[in-house]
Amino acid sequence: MSDLTKSETFDRAQFEELMKKRFFFAPSFQIYGGISGLFDYGPPGSALQTNIVELWRRHFVIEESMLEVDCSMLTPHEVLKTSGHVDKFADWMCKDPATGEIFRADHLVEEVLESRLKGDKEARGQKLEAAPESDDKKKRKKKVKEIKVTRLDDEVVKEYETILAQIDNYDGAQLGDLMVKHNIRNPVTGGELESPRQFNLMFETQIGPSGGLKGYLRPETAQGQFLNFNRLLEFNNNKVPFASAMVGKAFRNEISPRSGLLRVREFLMAEIEHFVDPLDKSHYRFDEVKDTALRLLPRDVQLSGSTKLVEMKIGDAVEKGIVDNTTLGYFMARIYEFLKKIGIDMNRVRFRQHMSNEMAHYACDCWDAEIHCSYGWIECVGCADRSAYDLSVHSAATKTPLIVQEKLAEPIVVDEFVVEVNKKKFGPKFKRDAKAVEEAMLAWTQAERQAKAEELASTGKIPVSVNGVNFVVESELVTIEKQKRTEHIRSYIPNVIEPSFGLGRILYVLMEHSYWTRPEDVNRGVLSFPPAVAPIKALIVPLSKNAEFDPLVRQLSAKLRRNGISNKVDDSNANIGRRYARNDELGTPFGITVDFDSLKDNTVTLRERDSTKQIRGTDDEIVATLVQLIAGHTTWSEVLDKFGEFTTVQEGN
Amino acid sequence: MSDLTKSETFDRAQFEELMKKRFFFAPSFQIYGGISGLFDYGPPGSALQTNIVELWRRHFVIEESMLEVDCSMLTPHEVLKTSGHVDKFADWMCKDPATGEIFRADHLVEEVLESRLKGDKEARGQKLEAAPESDDKKKRKKKVKEIKVTRLDDEVVKEYETILAQIDNYDGAQLGDLMVKHNIRNPVTGGELESPRQFNLMFETQIGPSGGLKGYLRPETAQGQFLNFNRLLEFNNNKVPFASAMVGKAFRNEISPRSGLLRVREFLMAEIEHFVDPLDKSHYRFDEVKDTALRLLPRDVQLSGSTKLVEMKIGDAVEKGIVDNTTLGYFMARIYEFLKKIGIDMNRVRFRQHMSNEMAHYACDCWDAEIHCSYGWIECVGCADRSAYDLSVHSAATKTPLIVQEKLAEPIVVDEFVVEVNKKKFGPKFKRDAKAVEEAMLAWTQAERQAKAEELASTGKIPVSVNGVNFVVESELVTIEKQKRTEHIRSYIPNVIEPSFGLGRILYVLMEHSYWTRPEDVNRGVLSFPPAVAPIKALIVPLSKNAEFDPLVRQLSAKLRRNGISNKVDDSNANIGRRYARNDELGTPFGITVDFDSLKDNTVTLRERDSTKQIRGTDDEIVATLVQLIAGHTTWSEVLDKFGEFTTVQEGN
Repeated sequence: MSDLTKSETFDRAQFEELMKKRFFFAPSFQIYGGISGLFDYGPPGSALQTNIVELWRRHFVIEESMLEVDCSMLTPHEVLKTSGHVDKFADWMCKDPATGEIFRADHLVEEVLESRLKGDKEARGQKLEAAPESDDKKKRKKKVKEIKVTRLDDEVVKEYETILAQIDNYDGAQLGDLMVKHNIRNPVTGGELESPRQFNLMFETQIGPSGGLKGYLRPETAQGQFLNFNRLLEFNNNKVPFASAMVGKAFRNEISPRSGLLRVREFLMAEIEHFVDPLDKSHYRFDEVKDTALRLLPRDVQLSGSTKLVEMKIGDAVEKGIVDNTTLGYFMARIYEFLKKIGIDMNRVRFRQHMSNEMAHYACDCWDAEIHCSYGWIECVGCADRSAYDLSVHSAATKTPLIVQEKLAEPIVVDEFVVEVNKKKFGPKFKRDAKAVEEAMLAWTQAERQAKAEELASTGKIPVSVNGVNFVVESELVTIEKQKRTEHIRSYIPNVIEPSFGLGRILYVLMEHSYWTRPEDVNRGVLSFPPAVAPIKALIVPLSKNAEFDPLVRQLSAKLRRNGISNKVDDSNANIGRRYARNDELGTPFGITVDFDSLKDNTVTLRERDSTKQIRGTDDEIVATLVQLIAGHTTWSEVLDKFGEFTTVQEGN
Repeated sequence: MSDLTKSETFDRAQFEELMKKRFFFAPSFQIYGGISGLFDYGPPGSALQTNIVELWRRHFVIEESMLEVDCSMLTPHEVLKTSGHVDKFADWMCKDPATGEIFRADHLVEEVLESRLKGDKEARGQKLEAAPESDDKKKRKKKVKEIKVTRLDDEVVKEYETILAQIDNYDGAQLGDLMVKHNIRNPVTGGELESPRQFNLMFETQIGPSGGLKGYLRPETAQGQFLNFNRLLEFNNNKVPFASAMVGKAFRNEISPRSGLLRVREFLMAEIEHFVDPLDKSHYRFDEVKDTALRLLPRDVQLSGSTKLVEMKIGDAVEKGIVDNTTLGYFMARIYEFLKKIGIDMNRVRFRQHMSNEMAHYACDCWDAEIHCSYGWIECVGCADRSAYDLSVHSAATKTPLIVQEKLAEPIVVDEFVVEVNKKKFGPKFKRDAKAVEEAMLAWTQAERQAKAEELASTGKIPVSVNGVNFVVESELVTIEKQKRTEHIRSYIPNVIEPSFGLGRILYVLMEHSYWTRPEDVNRGVLSFPPAVAPIKALIVPLSKNAEFDPLVRQLSAKLRRNGISNKVDDSNANIGRRYARNDELGTPFGITVDFDSLKDNTVTLRERDSTKQIRGTDDEIVATLVQLIAGHTTWSEVLDKFGEFTTVQEGN
């Protein structure tokens, strides 16, 4: 069951019950009634998160010597004004003036049209099926409470379907038009809604006591990395390409959070900013990954109204121009490997290219790693080409060069038009306007200078506009001539390729993908986390509460800890089978049974969670084996071969 | 030089230059002018932080099977109103009505009195010395720009000294009185200041689009742990004691941040909430630590105006009642061990007990681990007994029991006064007030009930006050009688012992303590981090840029990474000595040189940072040795003994 059909047999209610019972996560502030979009991770959820972060650091930061930083969350207004977030990091919302209720416009259009399509299907006597590729926006806290069984015209059906396929592609005005055209109102009261207007998704606060300094909680970790560009470049001995990285919380003041852990107001991100030469976006390790096969959903396929995946090697995708360059391709492959390593079901992963209106304001291309779960396809990793956008705008706003300077192997000679004023005459002529007029001329592009040079030659004067006021400059006051200049240094603003991980979402889909129930007992949930990410690695189970076992249990626990293996002792009265069942629910991959034989010869039994098979060895052998298993240096089947299976009749149901 | 005198030879300017040059940390948003109290960690600072967090998790969470959680930072008003932070998490500030300038009242009083004492000393012709135990509030961004040489009366000197010894012990009114009495004004303009008023130190924001829900950024991680108490207790099979833990950012909107990384607006904390039976605050592992000798500064010593340390074993301190209980004592010893493990100079650590006005509003006792650095003594870990404060207030506010229920071994019989109304007559008599009157009587304590029972018996009626309105209840309407009740369950609200770590402060003092310069070259800084916390563990240095070395260098780097050892290759043109000097500044403990012999027999040279001594072995031997060294399973001197010192003449200066 390692494909999309898994979601059909997946019982979310049962899964959520387990999540709650074993405190993987729970709504924050629940005894105060809770706040939607805020969640706390309990001990297993928190340990899982720590382990995923550690693996992420090893897979990306350590493997590629990335420059990890940790920057402030509180961010002053000015920075986010420049980055575009103050103006553009927003969703469209509609208010019902009668009830005061607020709707997110795109979600509302989507839900209303979907419910009408369902009503139409029923009217046509068709069976209602779960859409095979329904997405995360479709499953819970519906605004539309009931489906009206009404047959629609065939054209209307087609129109609705086209709208839904592109729902992420509309801006506020377009959503407003759709609402008017298709008569979309408050689904409960039928009341008319106001036109969509933007709601900025950043949390605002004041920094300092006088209240003068407006700030926000960062909406992404990227900005801190961009602002430190010069320091990072220097740290990297002024060489490009290099990547910085950050793991940290970011914030998004959702209009109406939903879909559990998938759309929250506070979340853990891990972002890489890979700085490259815009003229050479190749990656030196691309060859290592070029044969990785990915399932792609390119932009043009989506615009044609289809969601059919194209499976191909990343090397071929770059060659065919589907993926723009090898750095983008390299990271897509590395993302794929990371998701695989932590235990995601790779048959439920696709890379979807963003459509143009859907892209963030800073991106010029973007491929999302989407993972399928019971909420549909979820964007979990964005892999965007932010071009030189961020460094350019911050550089302009602060008048701080954020550039790379490279010594040219061969100096180059450039021809360019140079504007030079005749200082002696220019000042007296224009007096207090002289500086502004000169600056206006110096601001001309090469093409403008050429045109002006021609005009000057033919008419003997040129008009110069300064803030809407026109001056006339005569040829005796200025020369505009082509000159040769030798350049030894090449300066450029690097481009940025950004793989951006929503770790909270990845954690959630991983928990769903890892969940199954034993055929012999469907009420017995198992979470099959790979050993490297499992919250607790080993459960130590003395056969009974007999105090004789205590010294060996304590010694074993200490030995495991000394080897960095988190473990838990369960010396409760429950029978061994029950104790193992409890830990299957926590996703603990290994169990160690201490019995009366252990007291004689120091041997213990090691049980593997998924197969429930066992081996037997001395405590030192078992600890050493666990170290290898958790580090991924050996597999359970190799261990079984080496030790031979050990069978007992102890395990109950 | 492992004592307080170290701070006298410590050159902060030089140290800070290194911090900046190697990008350990830098002011956030610097290209926008920076925001005081916000800092970014660069690659070495960030890696150091990650390693300290990892060690902290191993030392506390994994070692003691603590229940780690990760809770939301955004916190609704109601929660922090209940916890007391809305009303009490504040500093006293004074505004200058003429200039609009804002001063933190206690800092201002302190600085003005100190400057007057200095002026007095000069007037008396005494030499000015750095106070040996000056604290973190004394060194930078002084409001008082110049010292007036004025002799004071002897009594005034004494009075000032007494005030300064207790400066943390004054509330706003007292600070205001001091300012009036001692004529403390705006030090620059001489202008009179407004009386001190409270400024709340939490960052405020709005959650959700309608702006209706006021929230704050958490001022500590503790509240999330308290609110999840019931889930955590259940996770722990309803057994007490147990500890929860959290590592995360917290926020404090400082009036005027200063002292670099030591007083910031956003900081990383690690907090443990250890829940205990209030009748039994003993710790089962106290015996393991009872001989740990700590240097204590108890409350009564400070109140006597002294700062003389008392050195004793923690076992004796508990026995003598200086430290209240073994759980508090256990954590103080474990904190000591942790600080030692990460490389803090333990001769510069003391445990100081809080004075009563100084304690946070929730604490009933508190010992701070203070660490000495160039800013004086810095509070780095608080170890507070929060009693049942937090669970009680949240329980009352939400009407949710946050209690432990234990089956009693022997049922107990309790005598208690029971209030019972005569339902038939009570309702008709008091009509719509009946419920309120009954509830007012049921709210009486046992002592009150006893008094009322006596009054009822003697006078035949009792007065009942409901919201200020008095009712009279006659004896035919109510009985108050002593009854016996058998209890099988004991219910109690656990107390909380809270070790709370300011990881950012610890990181800073660790960097100061680790810094020194080689006697042969005082411009050559070294950061002697222990291998376990060092940002990068190994530097790989090929003898020259010769491409012949590349395969071996790449292979070695990959082997190290596979063993989780972060490493960096320096194949620049600089000579080996210079390359090692650069990495001494990054605190990299080990260097591996690849030379022409390496190409023949696969042997490389391993250099240790502090001693600059070397050994030689095959690449596999060296990797295995590094694994042992970093895990702390062997020491460099053992390694030297095993391999023998290898001497070359390669290292330059």
